[in-house]
Amino acid sequence: MADPLSDTTVAVFLAQRGTEEVEFIEPKQAVEDAGATVEVVGTETGEVETVNNDLEPGDSYEIEKSFSEISSDDYDALIIPGGTVGADTLRMDEDAMSLVSEFAEAQMPLGVICHGPWTLVEADAVEGRTVTSYPSLQTDIRNAGGEWVDEEVVVDEGLVTSRDPDDLPAFCDKIVEEFEEGQH
Amino acid sequence: MADPLSDTTVAVFLAQRGTEEVEFIEPKQAVEDAGATVEVVGTETGEVETVNNDLEPGDSYEIEKSFSEISSDDYDALIIPGGTVGADTLRMDEDAMSLVSEFAEAQMPLGVICHGPWTLVEADAVEGRTVTSYPSLQTDIRNAGGEWVDEEVVVDEGLVTSRDPDDLPAFCDKIVEEFEEGQH
Repeated sequence: MADPLSDTTVAVFLAQRGTEEVEFIEPKQAVEDAGATVEVVGTETGEVETVNNDLEPGDSYEIEKSFSEISSDDYDALIIPGGTVGADTLRMDEDAMSLVSEFAEAQMPLGVICHGPWTLVEADAVEGRTVTSYPSLQTDIRNAGGEWVDEEVVVDEGLVTSRDPDDLPAFCDKIVEEFEEGQH
Repeated sequence: MADPLSDTTVAVFLAQRGTEEVEFIEPKQAVEDAGATVEVVGTETGEVETVNNDLEPGDSYEIEKSFSEISSDDYDALIIPGGTVGADTLRMDEDAMSLVSEFAEAQMPLGVICHGPWTLVEADAVEGRTVTSYPSLQTDIRNAGGEWVDEEVVVDEGLVTSRDPDDLPAFCDKIVEEFEEGQH
């Protein structure tokens, strides 16, 4: 029970720019603390800058593998952080969206927070699912066929969503729990 | 012909944060040069900072009137600039969205660029309309019932849309033309 995720490999998405720093580092740390092997994946390998509160510069972090060189088979779970510009950037990467689509179709565990759920809309992964997000996305989610609710954390068959950085404690607890359960 | 918009009052939207500076100042200047009376409207009056390339600080500009104190009857045309964070912020203002909705229903002229069309999605003003936008919005626009096309400027019954700052010359020419035509 000390390391519930010791057999779990998690991909954490990091956009070329605009990822909300705390939504990247805290979920990553939570699954690492639970024993998971974590890889940071993005469009291009190398250092990228994050943001705080959407517009202020955050620290830089390394993208270890590119979306084009990985496969959904390599991972047991995905984490997709927000940041308005970050999520808007991620949704334009077709390889990233294929990964999300494959995970959602297979009901594999995904943790997606804040503006991150735009990637679920883009990957057509929200139809018939109950999710939350930053409130500005609710119309996009409903138009994509999802049920949007205003709760700090929502779980629907392995898909864990939260609204904003204030929800991180609940989000981090829940992704560890769902990632341990694995495929639904 | 020197002042084609001399009888035209235009509201230019400016978000509390994250409006793309060049998409705010260039269309504003274009309609002013054509003789329009321009008012900068936003959620709260006062100075707000814009951005360049989404994340770098731009200059500050004044919001002259708040959305809550104006009416669609006060204006002949609207301009809605982008900026990822700016457009995401504007769509959460209900008074702003009522204005957009009233303008779109009445087929009054609107100029909307880049990420600005998220406001059309939010105001349910895109169904059955042909528009363009920054490409990351195309799924949101299609899911809202719009037809998304990839062109530098698109006009549909007074609704003028463009993709990004590179399209500003075509966008500015077209809004002056459509604002002169008035209600469709």
